[in-house]
Amino acid sequence: MIDLKCTALIIIDMQRDFCEKNGYADHMGLDVEILRKPIANIQKLLTWARQHQLLVVHTREGHRTDLTDLYPLKKQRTSGLKSEIGAVGPMGKLMLRGEYGHDIIDEIKPISGEPIIDKPGYSAFAYTDLELILKNRDIKNLMITGVTTEVCVSSTFRQATDLGFYCITVQDACASANEDLHQAALKMIEVENGIFGQVMATENILNFSH
Amino acid sequence: MIDLKCTALIIIDMQRDFCEKNGYADHMGLDVEILRKPIANIQKLLTWARQHQLLVVHTREGHRTDLTDLYPLKKQRTSGLKSEIGAVGPMGKLMLRGEYGHDIIDEIKPISGEPIIDKPGYSAFAYTDLELILKNRDIKNLMITGVTTEVCVSSTFRQATDLGFYCITVQDACASANEDLHQAALKMIEVENGIFGQVMATENILNFSH
Amino acid sequence: MIDLKCTALIIIDMQRDFCEKNGYADHMGLDVEILRKPIANIQKLLTWARQHQLLVVHTREGHRTDLTDLYPLKKQRTSGLKSEIGAVGPMGKLMLRGEYGHDIIDEIKPISGEPIIDKPGYSAFAYTDLELILKNRDIKNLMITGVTTEVCVSSTFRQATDLGFYCITVQDACASANEDLHQAALKMIEVENGIFGQVMATENILNFSH
Amino acid sequence: MIDLKCTALIIIDMQRDFCEKNGYADHMGLDVEILRKPIANIQKLLTWARQHQLLVVHTREGHRTDLTDLYPLKKQRTSGLKSEIGAVGPMGKLMLRGEYGHDIIDEIKPISGEPIIDKPGYSAFAYTDLELILKNRDIKNLMITGVTTEVCVSSTFRQATDLGFYCITVQDACASANEDLHQAALKMIEVENGIFGQVMATENILNFSH
Repeated sequence: MIDLKCTALIIIDMQRDFCEKNGYADHMGLDVEILRKPIANIQKLLTWARQHQLLVVHTREGHRTDLTDLYPLKKQRTSGLKSEIGAVGPMGKLMLRGEYGHDIIDEIKPISGEPIIDKPGYSAFAYTDLELILKNRDIKNLMITGVTTEVCVSSTFRQATDLGFYCITVQDACASANEDLHQAALKMIEVENGIFGQVMATENILNFSH
Repeated sequence: MIDLKCTALIIIDMQRDFCEKNGYADHMGLDVEILRKPIANIQKLLTWARQHQLLVVHTREGHRTDLTDLYPLKKQRTSGLKSEIGAVGPMGKLMLRGEYGHDIIDEIKPISGEPIIDKPGYSAFAYTDLELILKNRDIKNLMITGVTTEVCVSSTFRQATDLGFYCITVQDACASANEDLHQAALKMIEVENGIFGQVMATENILNFSH
Repeated sequence: MIDLKCTALIIIDMQRDFCEKNGYADHMGLDVEILRKPIANIQKLLTWARQHQLLVVHTREGHRTDLTDLYPLKKQRTSGLKSEIGAVGPMGKLMLRGEYGHDIIDEIKPISGEPIIDKPGYSAFAYTDLELILKNRDIKNLMITGVTTEVCVSSTFRQATDLGFYCITVQDACASANEDLHQAALKMIEVENGIFGQVMATENILNFSH
Repeated sequence: MIDLKCTALIIIDMQRDFCEKNGYADHMGLDVEILRKPIANIQKLLTWARQHQLLVVHTREGHRTDLTDLYPLKKQRTSGLKSEIGAVGPMGKLMLRGEYGHDIIDEIKPISGEPIIDKPGYSAFAYTDLELILKNRDIKNLMITGVTTEVCVSSTFRQATDLGFYCITVQDACASANEDLHQAALKMIEVENGIFGQVMATENILNFSH
């Protein structure tokens, strides 16, 4: 069993832009209902983590309003969809910080002491202070949840592994609009005897205690 | 002459907490008047940079209000002074983001399109998106100004050099409360034929054009 | 068409330990024959890249002989297999630098001017000088090949994307012992209109020229 | 007193190219005798560190023989001196890995289990696996020695501080050809109540024990 004192719960990109109608993902044609599936389990994990005083970290994908942190190629790619980053939508400019759509959904509201990482990339470590925050608390293990499994969740557990963290990805607390890629991303974790850590179900984690 | 199209002006930590009475530096016993000396030259450089469409980047040292990005040792060190990070002062909690004292002085107000880097360390590259922003604009050269010369200015031009940027530190647009260390930090740039780039005066830079 | 002047060919981990009998992968029970499948196409790409003066970079996964760069957890994981890192095999100690098995296969021998990156992680950027080398040549685009598609190839194109590189993963010049995960890893590249760049076939790339 | 179990001794760039006649520093006109001054104290610290089972890390500044990791600007800078990186000298090509002059001096020979970091920059953390090695051993404190105080020693303790390490720079176990800059670099450590850690003398450290 892992030591909870050096374990953090990481909740990736549970933003309105991914999990609500009229947001970025919806504009792009992704099925938002599937991306909402992990909400109930993340809520359970959040309650459990707060009870056990785990560090909880939330992330939000998005960009500065002046777009200075947006790669020309990323802008170009999203403009090929109906969801160009910065375009005006009913919940504000898509994927820009400070907009209503960019914020975390009400169901998983961060509380004081739970840092929010604003990330310009897919990995939560790319050009952010996440590793610094984890080091300050001597965190060695990450429980990773959120959306989407094959993009931001995967990029995060991969870089975390290279940085030396032990990752537990919570299979029923993350989701992808593409169920096959969700399953495949989880299988990749376990090749070569757990090359990117471990896959666990929410129920099992809720049994962990100090 | 350097190519201005791939050059950025970097203004380090010209915050009320360093440059005004009752801020962090003042509490610590530093002479704030000396730290205000570069204001006039930074203003000239800023006008020139805006005219020539250079990327301008401002930085602010400081921390998250929950202190999760503050190393235990840094907290401990400042608590030995009369300026513990997070302590309440007349301009708000010292060195915390969102507080009045943490913001940039009115004389050097950033305008739209000039990104502000909130940095938890001394180097502006440590756990920030600064390198990403510079890469997006194909920046190769940095003109570095601000306070203090021997701490944040030096840590920044040192890491910038290791990252491959060519640095011009503007001698009369940066300052330290300790004049000897200001001079020494500038001399260190020029050892071994310019190991950390070049030292220049404001007047010379104002003559540069496309 | 991409600009070849700022494009590099990256060949991931085509080492005896992965591509020959009695190496690390073979000990672990992976089908080495499948991992040899990309050799012919990598050879074609290598010939083409050398003709067009592209930067070619080779990587080798492996560790220091004193194991100081090996995470305790990675050591533990491989000791659960029959392929503990550092264990003695017929081609030398598994996955250790300087050993015969750790080196690149004869079919894809690096030549002078083609840097070899010794990487302790799965991403070729983790704790290596790869980004420095790419910056020195103003490289913006990467053509990625090698093994295995779902582990080191994927971790590399993911971190490369976050660092701002445009990635072309060459589908028939990379391989995995698990064909489903090979296909899934390629599909992940193309979600959301090419979130991790582009997938191309060797034949198409061989038509590119300055 | 610091906890020796999570403390490492770092020895910066005690290479023939800096500390012997006919090397890089000598070609450049630096006084090699001054750079040899810390040898005796580093030897004492090394004996003490080995007795107390501290992790010992040696660094070497230098470049790949194909120069792919050498910034165009660094090459240009040294070519303005009589010590262009890669030029042939009596101890081999200046500052290139594998050459006799690039290696560590006989007086401070690394032994098995003491990793050597080949660094292309001035900070020992830039594009190297140093942080990985320190994390693997749970190192929190660094005792820093070597040459030169104002260049590589300073760049290293500055980046180390930003990464969260507590640094003790050993004043009489490091040196610079410029005595004023040596003293100034040490003074910078202690501003603002020890902004870059602590300065200590060899004799004091030799009294530390578990």
